[in-house]
Amino acid sequence: MIGFSSYAGVMESPMNSAEEQQHSSPLATSWSKKEEPNKNQKPKGVGGFVLVHAGAGYHSESKAKEYKHVCKRACQRAVDQLKAGALAVEAVAAALVELEDSPFTNAGMGSNLNLSGEIECDASIMDGKSLQYGAVGAISGIKNPVLVANRLLSEAQKGKLSAGRIPPCFLVGLGAHEWAIGHGIPPCPSEKMATKFSLSAYKRNKRKMEVAEEMDTGRNQTKKKRLSAENHSGCLDTVGAVVVDLEGNVAAAVSSGGLAMKHPGRVGQAAHYGCGCWAENACNMNSYSTAVSTSGCGEHLIRTMLARECSAAMQSEDAHQALLEAMQNKFISSPFLASEDRVLGGVIVLRCCRCVEAQQSQNIQGILVEFLWSHTTESMCVGYMSAQDSKAKTHISRLPPGTIPGQSLAIEGGVCRLMSVAE
Amino acid sequence: MIGFSSYAGVMESPMNSAEEQQHSSPLATSWSKKEEPNKNQKPKGVGGFVLVHAGAGYHSESKAKEYKHVCKRACQRAVDQLKAGALAVEAVAAALVELEDSPFTNAGMGSNLNLSGEIECDASIMDGKSLQYGAVGAISGIKNPVLVANRLLSEAQKGKLSAGRIPPCFLVGLGAHEWAIGHGIPPCPSEKMATKFSLSAYKRNKRKMEVAEEMDTGRNQTKKKRLSAENHSGCLDTVGAVVVDLEGNVAAAVSSGGLAMKHPGRVGQAAHYGCGCWAENACNMNSYSTAVSTSGCGEHLIRTMLARECSAAMQSEDAHQALLEAMQNKFISSPFLASEDRVLGGVIVLRCCRCVEAQQSQNIQGILVEFLWSHTTESMCVGYMSAQDSKAKTHISRLPPGTIPGQSLAIEGGVCRLMSVAE
Repeated sequence: MIGFSSYAGVMESPMNSAEEQQHSSPLATSWSKKEEPNKNQKPKGVGGFVLVHAGAGYHSESKAKEYKHVCKRACQRAVDQLKAGALAVEAVAAALVELEDSPFTNAGMGSNLNLSGEIECDASIMDGKSLQYGAVGAISGIKNPVLVANRLLSEAQKGKLSAGRIPPCFLVGLGAHEWAIGHGIPPCPSEKMATKFSLSAYKRNKRKMEVAEEMDTGRNQTKKKRLSAENHSGCLDTVGAVVVDLEGNVAAAVSSGGLAMKHPGRVGQAAHYGCGCWAENACNMNSYSTAVSTSGCGEHLIRTMLARECSAAMQSEDAHQALLEAMQNKFISSPFLASEDRVLGGVIVLRCCRCVEAQQSQNIQGILVEFLWSHTTESMCVGYMSAQDSKAKTHISRLPPGTIPGQSLAIEGGVCRLMSVAE
Repeated sequence: MIGFSSYAGVMESPMNSAEEQQHSSPLATSWSKKEEPNKNQKPKGVGGFVLVHAGAGYHSESKAKEYKHVCKRACQRAVDQLKAGALAVEAVAAALVELEDSPFTNAGMGSNLNLSGEIECDASIMDGKSLQYGAVGAISGIKNPVLVANRLLSEAQKGKLSAGRIPPCFLVGLGAHEWAIGHGIPPCPSEKMATKFSLSAYKRNKRKMEVAEEMDTGRNQTKKKRLSAENHSGCLDTVGAVVVDLEGNVAAAVSSGGLAMKHPGRVGQAAHYGCGCWAENACNMNSYSTAVSTSGCGEHLIRTMLARECSAAMQSEDAHQALLEAMQNKFISSPFLASEDRVLGGVIVLRCCRCVEAQQSQNIQGILVEFLWSHTTESMCVGYMSAQDSKAKTHISRLPPGTIPGQSLAIEGGVCRLMSVAE
């Protein structure tokens, strides 16, 4: 059990988001846009909001620029989809493709190599409208695993297969690869998916393992511990996104190359229902639509079912307080991780509710979007954008100096209001 | 959305279990045993209770004898372990091995064949004491998949691997097979795992699919529907068990060959965290220890996360009412299955609490065990036994005549009190 877990809250209220210096707060930005809409934009039936992450882990200042850049592009891809009238689930898939295609993220291209030097990816996607879910685990030779997960989701929506067989929602390994090819998703040679960086990291990790195994004799425990810490901090950069469209539908997705040097066949949280992503539209039982995507140490995120727990928590009145309590009680201090000394992970969260504005024009409807991120890792890279923004904002959130990763957390976020003219 | 779901409760209270005619109620049996203990038995430090299932699906009268027989043997295996002082998690694994070894069940030997005519199995196990979990998905060439899941669980309890790598809790496909072999679990040639019955079912199903695909032109929709129904009812017999040991630790496990004619690589609920099995010892937050194992249509059990939902529900005061409401609201009428016309599944549930008896001898402690099963399928085969019983009781629970599988449910159960002399 973790004896003491300090709370390192960076933000006191969702209104008070820590932003990059060159940007005003997302709340102010969004409001000003809505109050004075660009006359060239079509507010009717298009719009929405996207929040992406390029992993909770450790982002050096030197890598920060690349991570921010890919988050920006991913947001733009999702917004392009939303502007073209796509539903949330299609927009979230588009964001993920961009994140997977970056050689810097641990997903799709440039994924971590496993113990055998191969790439095996996990990905999943959930549609808050239909509550359908699709996932692939330990899939090789596919550039964009999220597209296979998304195809599983959409095939399941078509109903039963021949002879009343129920369509699968989760496929793994070679079977998943073959299903993808059979559904028109092109294969990608494994050697094209590895990058100079992932190959050199593999060699470095392999050497580290050899050294650590030599030291298992007990000759040098201090050095062994240091090696472990290094290994932990660098390899957690799963990617994900959450989206709300102008109809108020939410969707979430996640994709990962998994832990570096994992055993072949190991499946992490990105392909675990309730652990990697979650999306639920508002319904009779839930006042808010919620979408969550997670990143970090897969086994920690699995055993705490963090995506679903955060989603459930977000039905409380105060989103910021709810996420803080969920991260503290259901993650850092979770009885499911009592034997872990450091609990490593991060989440991005979106929650939305409809509100008809008391404005002169009664046919204007609004969706209030609260978006937050929280992590126990040293840093987490996020980006966000509404369909009315001209470009995405990006941010690398860091634990306050002096706090201990795995035992402390940072939490930040903002608020945005989407407006549309009711038909 | 299911328009109407009738409740077909077979039992009005857990005290009033529907038993096989040759047996008295489990409550009476257990009490009488405890009041007059067999002098040859050692009540101190040994004992416990096991409940197993050989699937929720359709059990013809002709197959009933075989299913009951394997449930009986599985209970005996678990009780043998408990009497030898094993913890709940070891006893539950022993029960599963027996269930997997039966050629009649859809798990291990005699599993359903997939679309390619191969056997790929799913299994998972959870220990309520450590809250550790292990699972394998789409694994081939291993006679007892539950032993691989159990080994993953116990390896994870040993802590980190070399270089601080986190041990996996879920392995799939070839990687899972190789990990098993590397950990001393012997391979089993696939042809030995197929049975005369599974091979002939494969041929029959293949023919059915061809006919159904021919009819997809729309020539004969009526016949198509009938073929679908046949396919559904026969292929859901996943196996599982829940155990409490005399220390009050609970454990749960589940194993399945998956749906007949599934796509290669498809993973069902038996390898999904929170969906196939769940076990949690009582703690500060939970008054009761609970253990759950599920059976039925994997995709339905996954999307509703039925094992964990039932476990959470069992913290309510009235176990019977709580399970009834969980099956009704979180399964049959679940918004996650709104598009399904028939929601097919079953659960076995155990919940326990400690109670010091107001007896003359103050050093006698008791554990009150409530055990229940519920299903929406036509039938479900269960067996149960306490360590003080001379043999297991078995029962095939059926929906009341005239009710519709997938829209109605049956619920039954009993109560047992385990006694031990405090050290």
